[in-house]
Amino acid sequence: MAENAAATANIGVVGLAVMGSNLARNLASREGNTVAVYNRSYEKTETLLSEHPEAGFVGSSTVEEFAASLQTPRTAIIMVKAGAGTDAVIDQLTAVFEPGDIIVDGGNALFTDTIRREKAVRETGIHFVGAGISGGEEGALNGPSIMPGGSKESYETLGPILSSIAAVAEGEPCVTHVGTDGAGHFVKMIHNGIEYADMQLIAEAYDLIRRGTGKSPAEIADVFAEWNTGELESYLIEITAEVLRQVDAETGKPLVDVIVDQAGAKGTGAWTVQTALDLGIPVSGIAEAVFARSLSSKPAQRAAATDLPGPSDAWTVDDPETFIEDVRRALYASKIIAYSQGFDEIVAGAEQYGWDIQKGEIAKIWRGGCIIRAQFLNRITEAYAENDGLVALVTAPYFRDAVAGAQDSWRRVVATAAHAGIPAPAFSSSLSYYDGLRADRLPAALVQGQRDFFGAHTYKRIDKDGTFHTLWSGDRSEISAVDTH
Amino acid sequence: MAENAAATANIGVVGLAVMGSNLARNLASREGNTVAVYNRSYEKTETLLSEHPEAGFVGSSTVEEFAASLQTPRTAIIMVKAGAGTDAVIDQLTAVFEPGDIIVDGGNALFTDTIRREKAVRETGIHFVGAGISGGEEGALNGPSIMPGGSKESYETLGPILSSIAAVAEGEPCVTHVGTDGAGHFVKMIHNGIEYADMQLIAEAYDLIRRGTGKSPAEIADVFAEWNTGELESYLIEITAEVLRQVDAETGKPLVDVIVDQAGAKGTGAWTVQTALDLGIPVSGIAEAVFARSLSSKPAQRAAATDLPGPSDAWTVDDPETFIEDVRRALYASKIIAYSQGFDEIVAGAEQYGWDIQKGEIAKIWRGGCIIRAQFLNRITEAYAENDGLVALVTAPYFRDAVAGAQDSWRRVVATAAHAGIPAPAFSSSLSYYDGLRADRLPAALVQGQRDFFGAHTYKRIDKDGTFHTLWSGDRSEISAVDTH
Repeated sequence: MAENAAATANIGVVGLAVMGSNLARNLASREGNTVAVYNRSYEKTETLLSEHPEAGFVGSSTVEEFAASLQTPRTAIIMVKAGAGTDAVIDQLTAVFEPGDIIVDGGNALFTDTIRREKAVRETGIHFVGAGISGGEEGALNGPSIMPGGSKESYETLGPILSSIAAVAEGEPCVTHVGTDGAGHFVKMIHNGIEYADMQLIAEAYDLIRRGTGKSPAEIADVFAEWNTGELESYLIEITAEVLRQVDAETGKPLVDVIVDQAGAKGTGAWTVQTALDLGIPVSGIAEAVFARSLSSKPAQRAAATDLPGPSDAWTVDDPETFIEDVRRALYASKIIAYSQGFDEIVAGAEQYGWDIQKGEIAKIWRGGCIIRAQFLNRITEAYAENDGLVALVTAPYFRDAVAGAQDSWRRVVATAAHAGIPAPAFSSSLSYYDGLRADRLPAALVQGQRDFFGAHTYKRIDKDGTFHTLWSGDRSEISAVDTH
Repeated sequence: MAENAAATANIGVVGLAVMGSNLARNLASREGNTVAVYNRSYEKTETLLSEHPEAGFVGSSTVEEFAASLQTPRTAIIMVKAGAGTDAVIDQLTAVFEPGDIIVDGGNALFTDTIRREKAVRETGIHFVGAGISGGEEGALNGPSIMPGGSKESYETLGPILSSIAAVAEGEPCVTHVGTDGAGHFVKMIHNGIEYADMQLIAEAYDLIRRGTGKSPAEIADVFAEWNTGELESYLIEITAEVLRQVDAETGKPLVDVIVDQAGAKGTGAWTVQTALDLGIPVSGIAEAVFARSLSSKPAQRAAATDLPGPSDAWTVDDPETFIEDVRRALYASKIIAYSQGFDEIVAGAEQYGWDIQKGEIAKIWRGGCIIRAQFLNRITEAYAENDGLVALVTAPYFRDAVAGAQDSWRRVVATAAHAGIPAPAFSSSLSYYDGLRADRLPAALVQGQRDFFGAHTYKRIDKDGTFHTLWSGDRSEISAVDTH
């Protein structure tokens, strides 16, 4: 299709549910943008046009019109529910777009789907970009954190447009070209996995303080508000204070006590863990967070388990202030581990899929717009700036020192939770991971011995090269063996 | 192909590496069996025939000959490395087999592959059975635990043959028809997941005792041997004692100190966790075990982390005997959780895929032949016999009481590990799970509040039906909302 004289828009949005509408409005509000919009049912388009005349949207009732309303290279962002709907829209657009045009998927696609789609669309000469967009409905409207993948070439066109709508942190737009094909959706997935861990850690901190000190949610809101002025400063700590302070109008109770304690999930946390298992990366903090949600959402099991016995001894906290400070430090140390594990997965994914991901840039674009935005991310950027080959984030001097200062508190909190019968799976597993990582010797050697015993899986020796097997069912001598790890 | 007059074999084996050869020899050793064997390269077949003339194998150099050597309904067990090779052999066999014949895949296939294959093969009128076979090379030779799926009809022919070669536990063969299509491989996968957890728990127990008491591996071997006479009695405890007692001939050191402490993995543990995430089942103990192996196998990270600081205070155990007994109880309680989580996943898988899995029968066929064989499994069978609708194994009276008796020890051990800086991820996470399951109120309510705040994900109320959203960016009143969990 040749360029139409009526092509007035420099960017298009397909799919006008809340996220798509808000992103379109965000685009339209920026100097120099004219935004074409298209939706499967034209009604939604009409509604958007009539409710937001100030946006100057160019509406189309067919995909052909939509394509004709876009200047070349045409650039369109798909904002539909991830899944088969995305493939359908891609098919529609590739039929009317031309080589050099750009299709962006701004939904929450699984990165392997994005890799597949990018490969298929690339054959038509059209660019396909999977872009993670974080920040929810409000972020879409006022400035999200954007994680685009796809070709470098497409980013030349796309970069300025996305920069214009992204959140701004310390003067920098929260967007960068993450890497080719599925890199953007991959990094968005890790963002969400870290978000799960962060939320679970905060929930455990709240639970420990409440049960340990008897403070009310409103009082604990003050604790979180105070924490938000220090090294834990972050959007999630901030909104935790807001949620805890909220009083239910109907009952006069704290809202958190009225909400059913079953946490939902949309799947990206599980993806993060499943992908980590494929990559061989231990992301135990994220996994425990995902499991804590699924455990909470099993009412029948929980009902059957309420009479399972707890600790014999009652638990009392001697000094609430000291305990709360211990919990704060435990939260900070555990959070460092969650990020360390998440960045390990980014490194492993980049290696596996051939992406040149700048870890420091990722931390930077998470400073604004997205759910895990935090001051703390600057420290990560600095750590990678100092040492790009850092093999584990927690070993960077800054984080090493932070954990060193926090660990005695961390250990006390995990031990207290165990004694008191309070579930703290993410706190505990982060500490176990930390102690496993720094151990000079792990009982994995025994596991290898067991595996060699029952499955002839062989083992390596610390004192020489090669692979060995003990003839356990024979004379128990050792032989050289073919590696069957 | 019509039945050949030369058809003398009642069972065939395809793939004559160690597992296949051993299974073929096992079959041949049982009264009434004549075993046809086939391998892609004829050399292996010749070797097997010449090394085991006593077996009376019927060897074939082509798959056509192989089919002709089998009585109808032809029954052949494929023992090749899981993956594309399996599909290739299935294609070969379906080309020469006839409707009513039975193809068994005895490899470690992913159960979803088995579901796919069963569906495809069924269309030819041939039965396809995915059968999990556990017990390693020795089990294959002397009696494995066998977990066949596939059609009930196929089990009429297959059942007696498999029963003849299976391990025997308390007079019963360790084989049962698990369920249709992929049920057998699914349950074998869970078996392996539990095995990962069991091994990791044993490794943590060993590590704690060694670091806490300074006992030598040989002395700890005595501890495990002693444990093997009580409620922990199991194959894995037994071989742990054997491995710990083993002295390296070359250095005179305990073998476990000579083995590189990096544990390998073949993937079934990761599959168990990945599938659990799809099913929404928290299998934290298994996940921590898988992660502990992957953490151990990161030498660069571990080398960078050796100078991460540990606890400020030195750790001493006052009374070694008491500590060891605490560890034993912690191990038992954690093991109950690992099995409880594994059986939860079986229940969820059965529901998801429409399998009528008899949980008590599964526990029974794991009593012999397989790696996790243990006395303990009888208690699981009893628990499901008492209450087939048990929603969580740990809530069965027997296990409830067992954990009640062990929990104070369990809490002490987890707290000690945290204070002492010894990684005990599986012990800790099992305890956190237990405390989460029995909690009358979880901080998941706060997580729901956070999700509603940043993503309008809505929440439920404890006091009325419906789905609600607080207008956090507005006047903070509550509205009824469409459920977007």
